Amino acid sequence: MNSPLSPIHPVALPHAYRLLNTGPTVLVSAAVGGARNVMAAAWNMPLDFDPPKVAVVLDKSTHTRKLVEQSGRFTLAVPCVQGADLAFAVGSQSQVDHARAGTVKADVLGVQWLGAADVPGLGDEAPAFSAALVAGCVGWLACRLLPEPHNQSAYDLFIGQVTHAWADERAFANGKYRPLAEVPEALRTLHHLGAGRFVVPGQELQALAPAAARV
Amino acid sequence: MNSPLSPIHPVALPHAYRLLNTGPTVLVSAAVGGARNVMAAAWNMPLDFDPPKVAVVLDKSTHTRKLVEQSGRFTLAVPCVQGADLAFAVGSQSQVDHARAGTVKADVLGVQWLGAADVPGLGDEAPAFSAALVAGCVGWLACRLLPEPHNQSAYDLFIGQVTHAWADERAFANGKYRPLAEVPEALRTLHHLGAGRFVVPGQELQALAPAAARV
Repeated sequence: MNSPLSPIHPVALPHAYRLLNTGPTVLVSAAVGGARNVMAAAWNMPLDFDPPKVAVVLDKSTHTRKLVEQSGRFTLAVPCVQGADLAFAVGSQSQVDHARAGTVKADVLGVQWLGAADVPGLGDEAPAFSAALVAGCVGWLACRLLPEPHNQSAYDLFIGQVTHAWADERAFANGKYRPLAEVPEALRTLHHLGAGRFVVPGQELQALAPAAARV
Repeated sequence: MNSPLSPIHPVALPHAYRLLNTGPTVLVSAAVGGARNVMAAAWNMPLDFDPPKVAVVLDKSTHTRKLVEQSGRFTLAVPCVQGADLAFAVGSQSQVDHARAGTVKADVLGVQWLGAADVPGLGDEAPAFSAALVAGCVGWLACRLLPEPHNQSAYDLFIGQVTHAWADERAFANGKYRPLAEVPEALRTLHHLGAGRFVVPGQELQALAPAAARV
């Protein structure tokens, strides 16, 4: 696709953490073979700059967690206002329940996936790293799981190294989020209060440097 | 103080994670004896509901990290628009540099600290847990460090269990952030883009529950 309506471009890895720096809710996706799934996770954060690492909490009850453990890979995608209903939906329903009913959560909820051709710069690694990229988001961080069995077991805490990152240039360009006034409301990030209530950035401010630092 | 201008009240522990759920930048503070310090940390997240746990990244170069390691305690405070300059300042300067110059960062930057009398519900634990509470914020999570030497060394990742939490009821009441329209702009949270640029919530939306869940 990579149509004029979705100008996806690679993000230099040292800038990838900036996609998460403002604390947006993310979608966590993973694939094993032909099976892929996605969940929502407000509990995520950058963990390092370069090479970039991320941390995310994946509850033991989730099917996505199993796909992460089996594949050793996951993607964090940054949804935006246009995808708020989908973000709430994938966070409210579990593939575990869908499997009991004989359905596929992502299909029932209408998740659209990008293809390898939609995300530039993958080369030979395309099949592995493009297998679970949710369309309609403003950023994507494809990660290799750094196995930490104690963290995963004791805290449901998963750590990944970002191997590829992309962004929609209408929201994030030249390694950072565009000035908020330039970002269409539909492409602004979601910050979860709970139960499908989100706050969305509506104002941007520049703090003043401390006087002592200017001396 | 606990004046009409700063109506600080306890937050029930199972609701404490909600102070961080939207991804705000926090101030991390700690105290050892009479010495206390504070830094900023965009890289933080909730880690569990009840008992509540949090995760935060503290670089090895920071003085606050040393105080956390020595005291086994830290506080995450949620700053807001009225404290944006201070949040940027405490995140831009290091006590390590101030110590070389014979100054105290928090004093030079005008950090105001709450006293034990300002935060209800502490009882006998007041001295330990109220030692480093930065005034002017909308929420505070006082934490006991859960030592994880591998995480701290390999990832600069610190995990704490929240033992007490408080909020300014003008921003957060009855266990959750107030509807955004009720929150004065000065008390809205800060989400760091970088270099002192912050986005601030300006809109709240309620996602629609998925049709399948309503069946």
